[in-house]
Amino acid sequence: MKQSFTILAGAVVAVAMAGTVIAQSDGDKAAEAAQDAREAQMDLYAFNLGLLGDMAKGAVPYDAAAAQAAAENLAALSALDQSRLWPEGSGEMSIETRAKVDIWDDMDDFTAKADDLMKAAAAMAEVAGTGLEAVQGQMGALGGACGACHKAYRAPES
Amino acid sequence: MKQSFTILAGAVVAVAMAGTVIAQSDGDKAAEAAQDAREAQMDLYAFNLGLLGDMAKGAVPYDAAAAQAAAENLAALSALDQSRLWPEGSGEMSIETRAKVDIWDDMDDFTAKADDLMKAAAAMAEVAGTGLEAVQGQMGALGGACGACHKAYRAPES
Repeated sequence: MKQSFTILAGAVVAVAMAGTVIAQSDGDKAAEAAQDAREAQMDLYAFNLGLLGDMAKGAVPYDAAAAQAAAENLAALSALDQSRLWPEGSGEMSIETRAKVDIWDDMDDFTAKADDLMKAAAAMAEVAGTGLEAVQGQMGALGGACGACHKAYRAPES
Repeated sequence: MKQSFTILAGAVVAVAMAGTVIAQSDGDKAAEAAQDAREAQMDLYAFNLGLLGDMAKGAVPYDAAAAQAAAENLAALSALDQSRLWPEGSGEMSIETRAKVDIWDDMDDFTAKADDLMKAAAAMAEVAGTGLEAVQGQMGALGGACGACHKAYRAPES
């Protein structure tokens, strides 16, 4: 009895998966590809911002060249063309993501917040190699630009 | 009897996990953070190169602005400072990665191959917006630069 139940359950799963594949439109696939790419973009922000943050709070020693490189990376990353990262239908109502649909309801504000990050990153890159105090002085604006967008447009972790 | 076995097994797993945490050095954590960041870097290469490749082979219609944006993204990404992505001890003998240890045995050649990619991406960005034939004309050099590094320094999928 147990074995036949297992086989039946397996068949149900197989049918359900087949349905999923058929139901997944090209739009979903594009949305999921965009989601993967924006996760990569955020990971690279975090990797570079993390080093600057660790220096700012004294968790790692200040290193002018490393700070400058991280800040320039952030500036370049925030200046990438990101239009393909946020296609319509790639919000939390459509795919597995923390991107709120509010993004598409207020794309002008979303874009303005992305511009704020680009400006804060450029300002950090202007001074990051000149000393620890300069890094510390720019961290608030840079972290604030990240946080402002997350607060408005990122859903809580489920 | 079954319950006591489950509890014992749980305790063994907990001890084993505690051992793993203790055994993981700061070096391992840095190596794994670097691995995550280089995966993100490769994902963003693929996301942008993928669009150019799809246009080149006719899978999606050529779009001058989109091709130009993708090519400029690739040029900017390949020009990022990547020194923190490849710390000593982050090869396949140390962590879960396809990065061969040959990278650190021949860092000059590895760096030269990264420079080749940067040049090929810059060349694509020079012309990508000018027409489909220009994109097709640069795809070989760009794909070749990716492939040359993968062939030498990326282990097969396990």
